[in-house]
Amino acid sequence: MASTVSSLQLALIAAVCSCHLVPTEAGFPWVEPTEGEPWPAPQQADMYPSFYFVNPAKIRFRTTRHSCADLEDAIGRTLQTLRDLAASHGVRAGRRPRSVVSGSLRERRTRVAASANRRRSRKRGESRRASSPRLHHDVEVWMDGMCDEKMMPSATMDEQYSIKINVPDSPGRAQIISDSLWGAYRGLETFTQLIYFSEKHGQFHLRQGIIRDFPRYAHRGLMLDTSRHFLSVSSIKATLELMAFNKFNVFHWHLVDDPSFPFVSVTFPNLSGKGAYRPDMVYTLDDVADIIEFARRRGIRVVPEVDTPGHVRSWGAGADNLLTVCYNETTGQPDGTFGPLDPTKGSTYRFVRRLLEEVTTRFPDKYIHLGGDEVFFGFPCWLSNPDVQAWMEKLNISTAEEVEKAYMQRLLRLVKRLPAKPEYVIWQDVVDNNITVQPDTIVHVWKGGADGWQQEADKVTSLGHRTIISSCWYLNYINYGVDWPQYYECEPEDFNGTLVQKSLLLGGEACMWGEFVDDTNLISRTWPRAAAVAERLWSAKEVSDAEVARPRMEEHRCRLLRRGYAVEPANGPGFC
Amino acid sequence: MASTVSSLQLALIAAVCSCHLVPTEAGFPWVEPTEGEPWPAPQQADMYPSFYFVNPAKIRFRTTRHSCADLEDAIGRTLQTLRDLAASHGVRAGRRPRSVVSGSLRERRTRVAASANRRRSRKRGESRRASSPRLHHDVEVWMDGMCDEKMMPSATMDEQYSIKINVPDSPGRAQIISDSLWGAYRGLETFTQLIYFSEKHGQFHLRQGIIRDFPRYAHRGLMLDTSRHFLSVSSIKATLELMAFNKFNVFHWHLVDDPSFPFVSVTFPNLSGKGAYRPDMVYTLDDVADIIEFARRRGIRVVPEVDTPGHVRSWGAGADNLLTVCYNETTGQPDGTFGPLDPTKGSTYRFVRRLLEEVTTRFPDKYIHLGGDEVFFGFPCWLSNPDVQAWMEKLNISTAEEVEKAYMQRLLRLVKRLPAKPEYVIWQDVVDNNITVQPDTIVHVWKGGADGWQQEADKVTSLGHRTIISSCWYLNYINYGVDWPQYYECEPEDFNGTLVQKSLLLGGEACMWGEFVDDTNLISRTWPRAAAVAERLWSAKEVSDAEVARPRMEEHRCRLLRRGYAVEPANGPGFC
Repeated sequence: MASTVSSLQLALIAAVCSCHLVPTEAGFPWVEPTEGEPWPAPQQADMYPSFYFVNPAKIRFRTTRHSCADLEDAIGRTLQTLRDLAASHGVRAGRRPRSVVSGSLRERRTRVAASANRRRSRKRGESRRASSPRLHHDVEVWMDGMCDEKMMPSATMDEQYSIKINVPDSPGRAQIISDSLWGAYRGLETFTQLIYFSEKHGQFHLRQGIIRDFPRYAHRGLMLDTSRHFLSVSSIKATLELMAFNKFNVFHWHLVDDPSFPFVSVTFPNLSGKGAYRPDMVYTLDDVADIIEFARRRGIRVVPEVDTPGHVRSWGAGADNLLTVCYNETTGQPDGTFGPLDPTKGSTYRFVRRLLEEVTTRFPDKYIHLGGDEVFFGFPCWLSNPDVQAWMEKLNISTAEEVEKAYMQRLLRLVKRLPAKPEYVIWQDVVDNNITVQPDTIVHVWKGGADGWQQEADKVTSLGHRTIISSCWYLNYINYGVDWPQYYECEPEDFNGTLVQKSLLLGGEACMWGEFVDDTNLISRTWPRAAAVAERLWSAKEVSDAEVARPRMEEHRCRLLRRGYAVEPANGPGFC
Repeated sequence: MASTVSSLQLALIAAVCSCHLVPTEAGFPWVEPTEGEPWPAPQQADMYPSFYFVNPAKIRFRTTRHSCADLEDAIGRTLQTLRDLAASHGVRAGRRPRSVVSGSLRERRTRVAASANRRRSRKRGESRRASSPRLHHDVEVWMDGMCDEKMMPSATMDEQYSIKINVPDSPGRAQIISDSLWGAYRGLETFTQLIYFSEKHGQFHLRQGIIRDFPRYAHRGLMLDTSRHFLSVSSIKATLELMAFNKFNVFHWHLVDDPSFPFVSVTFPNLSGKGAYRPDMVYTLDDVADIIEFARRRGIRVVPEVDTPGHVRSWGAGADNLLTVCYNETTGQPDGTFGPLDPTKGSTYRFVRRLLEEVTTRFPDKYIHLGGDEVFFGFPCWLSNPDVQAWMEKLNISTAEEVEKAYMQRLLRLVKRLPAKPEYVIWQDVVDNNITVQPDTIVHVWKGGADGWQQEADKVTSLGHRTIISSCWYLNYINYGVDWPQYYECEPEDFNGTLVQKSLLLGGEACMWGEFVDDTNLISRTWPRAAAVAERLWSAKEVSDAEVARPRMEEHRCRLLRRGYAVEPANGPGFC
C-alpha cells in the first residue's frame, strides 16, 4: 500500500532528512546531495521509501498507445542519457545488474533475494529488506493524444504527465502517462531523474511511487543575448538541452542589439553582412532553422526579439537612412553619430515591416518580442535632428516621449497586419511611457530588481495586460557566493493585486545578458543558477524554501555535470 | 635610426592611440584591441612604428651560445604556439607569406616591393611604405649563461632578457638575449606576443624595435586551493601554462584544508585515503612530480602549503589522536567534533614533522608555506578540552592565543631542523597574534581587502620581515562587470614605510580560493582577471592606469583565447 502522505510533504521531509550539515568551515555548511529527487520538484509525488535496483543501460521504453517520430526521437535521447549514466559508473548494457529487487520497507513478505549485495547490507546491520516484484526494465510510455508530424510547442501546450512505478494496481510496472507529446517529454525527463547511483549499495536505484505533475506557469523562459557577444550554435544548443533538463519551455532569443547584428536576413542581407562582428559570427538561415528544430524536439518555443526603436546601432552599418542622424547643438551639423530608428520616414516603417515579416515567417512561434526598452538613451539625438523637429511640429507634439509613442503605436499597428498575425511581447518601458497598446499585449517586466518590480506588476496587470517577470532573475548580475537562493526565493505573485490580476501572470524568464558572457563562460555561469528559476516557475508555490531545496540543488548540479555540461558549483565546497 | 622616446611613453602613446572608444551603449565603451602589445608590459621598449610581414609558421629559432634540453623544449613549445597561431588564420608553414618586408615609416630607401597587398594599401591612399632588409624568419636565441640539466627556478632566479628586431646595428636580424634560461623563457614569450594578425593587411606582422625587460618583483604568484573543490591535473597544468604566458613565477599550491585532503602522502597514506573526496580525487606521487616538472619547464616555482594548526578537519579522517577533541561545556563530554591540531601531544609534532619532511623533500622549492591563518575558529574547542586546559596550566598560560603561540613556535623550530632546511612563508595571522618568528620569515598579507592591508604591510615590514601581498587580489570574490581594473590599480607599495621597508616587499600573489571554483569554471573565472595582477607585479610601477591598459588587456584576452584557453571576456561587448 502506497504512502498517502501528501507528495509535497514527503518531498520536503525527504529533502530535509538527507541534508547532513557538516560544518566544514565558517559560512559554508556542507551540503549532502539528495538521491533521485527530480528538479524542478513535481507538483504531486507520493514516493515510497523503497527503490528498485536497475541497470540504466538496460531500460527500454515501449509506446503503448500513440507514438510518432518526435516521441521516438525523445525516447532515443533518453536511452542515450541512461546509457551514458550507466557508463559513467562502469555499468554496461550487457551486464546484468547485481539484483533487480526493490528495497521496500513496507512489503515484508519476501521472494528470493540472495545477492551478495544484500548479504553485505545485512552484515552492515541494516534492516532486512524485502523484495517487490521484478521490474523488467520495461517502461511503458502511454500517450493518450496523437502527435502529428512536426508539432510546434505553443503558449497553450499541455505539459502534464504522470509517472507510476510499481504502484499497487500495476505491480512491477513502470509507466509514463500523458495526454500530449509535451507531457511525454517532461515525463521522460522526470523518469531519468528518479534513477541515481547509490554509493552505499554500489548500484543504481530507481525510486518507486506515483507522480502527477504539471507546470505552475505556462511561460518559463530563458533569454540569451547574441549581440553583445556572439554565441555559437553549439552553445545555444547546449543551453536548450539544459533548458529541457529543467523543464524550461521558452527560449527568448535577443537576436540583435547595438553591438552586432548576427541574424542573417534574407530580405536585408547587409544587416548581418555589415553589422555582424565577423563574417563567421552570424546565424544563417540553416542555423536558425536548426536551432528552432532542436528546441521544438524538446518542447521549447523560440521567441525571437527584434528590439526597436532603440538598441539598433548595429543596424546602421547595413542600412542607409534608417537610423536618426544626430546633430551637434552648437554647429547645427550632423555630429557623425546615429540614434534610434528615424521615426519620421515612411521608409523606416516599411523596412521594419519587411524585416518583421521575414522574422515572423521564419520563427514559427505565434509570439514575437518587440523590445521597446530604453529608448530614452536616444532622446537627445531625436530632439537634435531637424527632420524630427519638423515632424514633431507637424504632429503637434513637443516631447521625445511623444515621438517614441508615435513610433511604437505605428509599429504595433503594422505588426498586427503582418501575414503571420503574430502576438507580441514588449518590455515594460512601453507601458511605463503611457503608450496605448492592444489589450492582448504581453508586458515583460524587467526593472526594479528583486524588490522593486512588484508595483510594476500590479500596474501592468491592473491595466489588464498579461505579464512576464524577469526583474529578479537577471543571471548576468553575478555575485560572490551562493546566489541561487535569491533567484529561488523571488515569488512572482508577491505583488498587490486581485486574483484576476494574478491570473494574468504568464510566468517569467531568466535573463542572461551578454556584456560579459560568451562561449567561454555561458554554460558555467548560467547553470545551475537558472535552475532556481526553473523550479520557481514549474513547481508549486509552496516549494519555496531555498534551505530545503539546497540538497536537491546539489544533486541536480551533479546531475547536469554528469551529463557532460560544465555547470559551476552551486553550494560551496564539495564534489560530484 | 630607432626612435629614442622612452619605451614606456611610447607604449602608453601606442595604447592610447589604438583605443577607439565607440560608445556602444550606456556603461560599456567599445574597446579596440591593440596590435602586438606584450602583456605584461616590458620595462623598456623602444618599438618602431613599423613591422615585418611574417609567417609565424616559418619562424625558426637558433641557439647561438649556450643551450640545453630545457631551452630546446621551450623553443619547441614556442614553435608550436606560432604554428597554431598561423593555422588559426589559415596560414601554413609551407606557404610563403605574401611579402616579407617591413612597413617602416622611417627608412625611406626601398628595396623591391610589388606585392598585391602593398598595391592595395596604396590604392587605399595609405602612405607608401618602404621596406627594410628582409627578415629571414630566423631568430637568434643568445643565452649567455649555461643551463644545467633540470635547473630549478628559485626565488633569486634571473629573469631579465632583451629582444632586438631589426635594430640599426643588426639590420634584418631578430635576437632574444638573456643571461639565464629563465630570461630566455620570458623573452620567447614576449617575442611571440610581438606577432599579431593584421586584419587590415590580411597578414601577420612582427613588430620591430628593442625591448629590455626584467621583473619589478621576484615573487609573482597565483594560489589555487585544491581542498574545497578538487582540481584535475589538467586544470592545474592549464593554469601553469596561462601563468607562463603572463610571466607569473610562483604557483602557491594550497594543497589541503578542512574539506578534503587530496595530497597522497607516502608517509601517511591514510590522510588522502580517508580524507580525500573520492579515491580518484587525489594527487598521487606521479601527479605531484608531473606538476612540479611542468612548472619547472616554464620557470615557475611550486610552493606547497601545509596549513596548521587550523584548517585541518580533513586530516582527522586518516589520523587518530591528531585533532583536538572538542568538549561540550554542559555535559563535560566530547561533543563529537574536532578542532585544530592537538597542541598538547608530542605525537602531534612528530606527525607534522614527518609530513613536512616528506613535503619538503618532494617539493624541491626552497620555500614552504606553513599557513597559520584563522586559528581562532578553533579557540573554543581548544579551551573546552581538559588536556589542553591541563597543558595550559603546566605552561602557565591562560589564553587560546598563547596556545596558538606555543604551537607555532614549536612548529617553526621543527621546520628549521628539517633535513631540507626550508625557508617558510606564513599567513599574516601569525604575526598579528604577536608570535615571535624568525626574522627571515616571509609574511603573507591577505586581510583587509583593497584598502585595508596597507597598515599591515607597514607593520610587517617595520618588524623587518619580507612580505608578499594578496589582500587586494582575491580573485574568488567575483563582481558583476569589468572588475580587473580594481586588481590592476592596487599598488603594493602604497603603504607608509621607509625605502628599507619597501625593499622587503617581495611581490604578491593572486588567490583563487576554491569555495565556488572547480574544473568547470577555474580557467574562465581566473583569467584574464589574474593577468591584471601579473602586470602589476612584473611591469614598472608607472604602468598603472587601467584605462590605458584596457585595449592591451583586450588584445591579451583574445591572445589567451586564441591559444585555446576559455578565458572570459575582459571589457564588455566585443569579439576576438
